[in-house]
Amino acid sequence: MSEGFTLWFTGLSGAGKSTLANLVAGELRRRGHRVEVLDGDEVRTNLSKGLGFSKEDRDTNIRRIGYVCKLLARNGVIAISAAISPYREVRDEIRRQHERFFEVYVKCPLDTLVERDVKGLYRKALKGEIANFTGVSDPYEEPFSPELVIESNRETPQQSLERLLQSLEQAGLIFAQGAGR
Amino acid sequence: MSEGFTLWFTGLSGAGKSTLANLVAGELRRRGHRVEVLDGDEVRTNLSKGLGFSKEDRDTNIRRIGYVCKLLARNGVIAISAAISPYREVRDEIRRQHERFFEVYVKCPLDTLVERDVKGLYRKALKGEIANFTGVSDPYEEPFSPELVIESNRETPQQSLERLLQSLEQAGLIFAQGAGR
Repeated sequence: MSEGFTLWFTGLSGAGKSTLANLVAGELRRRGHRVEVLDGDEVRTNLSKGLGFSKEDRDTNIRRIGYVCKLLARNGVIAISAAISPYREVRDEIRRQHERFFEVYVKCPLDTLVERDVKGLYRKALKGEIANFTGVSDPYEEPFSPELVIESNRETPQQSLERLLQSLEQAGLIFAQGAGR
Repeated sequence: MSEGFTLWFTGLSGAGKSTLANLVAGELRRRGHRVEVLDGDEVRTNLSKGLGFSKEDRDTNIRRIGYVCKLLARNGVIAISAAISPYREVRDEIRRQHERFFEVYVKCPLDTLVERDVKGLYRKALKGEIANFTGVSDPYEEPFSPELVIESNRETPQQSLERLLQSLEQAGLIFAQGAGR
């Protein structure tokens, strides 16, 4: 049985966490791993209905995701979280609960995110129509020493994927693929 | 990789759900399965802090356990829930979300539970010191067609364990052990 671990993405809304999470999930499944992506919205529906976006509520939501990741990871699953998870302390608390934890900071300048604004959320947040919006009206605390930093404005998702897989291999969390790659 | 499923115990407080859940978990681990027991108290701490014992809050708590069981089961884990889960509708809702679901009703007459009263909870509940206590001041809805009924006042935990393992084997959820048994 392969060993599970938790792959924890953190970063601002729109930085590319979910894109990369889903890309790597697909590749890891293709390689025969069991993989579960804990999507922020799905988790809010299933585990955290009623919670808002205050620091306390966000921390509770993130702790619940962390708990479920821990259960999956210790049972051989690669648990992937792609929630913003803006607060350093609770991310580090979850890290401490894990045997194997790999944190990826998906970094992108706010200006770029506001320009792209794929979902139109930054525009609304800047106009004050969304309260507690991370990066605009709510803090985001960068990780001090994540296992990997992805600068999503400087490389394509495919390039990020390659770098991430290499890092996971180097960390001994997954096996390298044959010389064909 | 072995196939996961959810083993869902239901029954009154003190009926023997946790005892049997832990016995079967130990035996299944011994046989090489990945097993996770979702203990009611641990789940309340990690997923449902702040929820009370109204029908709505109980249903929310049970739905969360069901969601986590589903994630584990579809990743090859035998997920075991040992929460009271008094309401039929939400149990059946969780069943419908599963590919493989095995419900065990751990049945014990209320009189016997009140007499035993291992934790002293029934005495308190009958004196009105605990509100919303299942079987005393809150309803318990028996399952209509559980996969197995365990009458815990008529057999030892070891006998129940044997019956449960046989039923799981007959249902094709686990492999039978060699002729040595």
